[in-house]
Amino acid sequence: MDIKAKFEKLITDLQNSICGEIELLDGKEKFTEDAWTREGGGGGFTRIFANGNVFEKAGVNRSAVYGEVTPALAAQLKTKGSHFFATGISLVIHPFSPMVPTTHANFRYFELYDAQKNKIDSWFGGGADLTPYYLFEEDAIHFHKTFKTTCDQFDPSFYPEFKLHCDAYFNNTHRGNERRGVGGIFYDYLRPSENRNEEFFFQFSAACGKAFTQAYLPIVERTKSLPFGEDQKRWQELRRGRYVEFNLIHDRGTLFGLKSNGRTESILMSLPPRVRFDYDDNPKPGSREEELISVLKNPREWVNR
Amino acid sequence: MDIKAKFEKLITDLQNSICGEIELLDGKEKFTEDAWTREGGGGGFTRIFANGNVFEKAGVNRSAVYGEVTPALAAQLKTKGSHFFATGISLVIHPFSPMVPTTHANFRYFELYDAQKNKIDSWFGGGADLTPYYLFEEDAIHFHKTFKTTCDQFDPSFYPEFKLHCDAYFNNTHRGNERRGVGGIFYDYLRPSENRNEEFFFQFSAACGKAFTQAYLPIVERTKSLPFGEDQKRWQELRRGRYVEFNLIHDRGTLFGLKSNGRTESILMSLPPRVRFDYDDNPKPGSREEELISVLKNPREWVNR
Repeated sequence: MDIKAKFEKLITDLQNSICGEIELLDGKEKFTEDAWTREGGGGGFTRIFANGNVFEKAGVNRSAVYGEVTPALAAQLKTKGSHFFATGISLVIHPFSPMVPTTHANFRYFELYDAQKNKIDSWFGGGADLTPYYLFEEDAIHFHKTFKTTCDQFDPSFYPEFKLHCDAYFNNTHRGNERRGVGGIFYDYLRPSENRNEEFFFQFSAACGKAFTQAYLPIVERTKSLPFGEDQKRWQELRRGRYVEFNLIHDRGTLFGLKSNGRTESILMSLPPRVRFDYDDNPKPGSREEELISVLKNPREWVNR
Repeated sequence: MDIKAKFEKLITDLQNSICGEIELLDGKEKFTEDAWTREGGGGGFTRIFANGNVFEKAGVNRSAVYGEVTPALAAQLKTKGSHFFATGISLVIHPFSPMVPTTHANFRYFELYDAQKNKIDSWFGGGADLTPYYLFEEDAIHFHKTFKTTCDQFDPSFYPEFKLHCDAYFNNTHRGNERRGVGGIFYDYLRPSENRNEEFFFQFSAACGKAFTQAYLPIVERTKSLPFGEDQKRWQELRRGRYVEFNLIHDRGTLFGLKSNGRTESILMSLPPRVRFDYDDNPKPGSREEELISVLKNPREWVNR
């Protein structure tokens, strides 16, 4: 099986296992699936979950698309080519309770070809990050530790580098460098080389994919029954507004998809279900809400390097 | 009084009169004002209204800013210069009832200077548009007719041109060319010339500014007591999601402001207070919701040219 087929099988299995685990934990609703095709080549399967016991909205999308490198894609890529192939899984989970963090993950593989259809470049990308509404240090530590343990099995330099990359990327610069959440890992342009072949990076992608539910679901189990009130729900909806701002203003994948005739509903499935935008709403000094903002503006080291 | 001072007086008066009329119609709440200064030169006054009887959130901002043309500004301008001066009023009104349309307007004046601070270019811009959640043809007609009457006093070619420009600009291209609303007028780069001096365009700006409340408030009066239920409120919140998408993905002013260290809270005061993002939510065939979408995708002529 070539690497493209292997990666597609990986994300198909991941989509099944992640959706299954979410359904099991939630206990009420099931995912529904929309299959879609892309004009220009390829398509995908978008699975959506709404109004469960624990999860208010979740989307798990996998796709394999290919075609010509358009001017919009060329502007985004750091490397030149005539045709491309891209496959990946992307997911966002929005719990109902403000005590339970939102999370996002994606794992992808990309190939680039010259005009004669010879493969001239390929790379792996991906990551996972956690967006709490209230800070529980043990949750941030657990999430980071899970991915550090996974990364360390491949290269001890991976976690520190990808953790920093994550903090730098998920950054609402227009909000005084307020990060989207407490981070995680983010990597891109991991290219096979003489020392590390594509099998190495395939195994790394598979390990990170497998780590995702181990990183996230125990946090959900721990926080899902914590009490909350209207004030906490309101704070969550305001913070979800920041999630919308990041995705629509800064996220390269979202903007690229929307401007290159991607499937809008699959791209914007990431947006939170209910959101507030109030003018200049700032948390009270010394509050738990202010504690969160402080950590978002000054990312911490959650595990020893 | 030079044109800069005249325009600033105009928008100061407009801010007062528009806020006063909104307060009068609402009957419950009052605007509060935040004065702010801009690092690099100038500042503004942001007035915010929240949780009234009729209006859920409204923002009326006026500013006068100046300074160096940064690379970000240079990329946005169609013309080259070393320093700039810009003054304008910008407002967004989000009513509580889904039967009452949202509206936006802005009126602005811009000057550009060379390195020796000689004025080398100047222009006027502005417009107003209406975003209903349910279509009432008479409202769209009234809104357009008011601005057509105003435009026609200056140049009969203005309304048809600015109406088309409005439909072309407020367009969610990523939603299959769904317009933000039923339009209005939008104009930019109106430059004084030998035939038409700056006084002509100043008077035009003033007339459009004055027309705004005449165009919008009668619609509010007519629709504010119409009955609605949870389904209509939900539809409004979904449509507000499209408003967020337009402002954060496409609106040049918003993106320029956010990426050039504008005052984020004053820029994003335009976002609706409560919003929903549900996956692939499509109105039923033959419904009033579908009727709206149809008009947004196929802009109509609301008044005879």
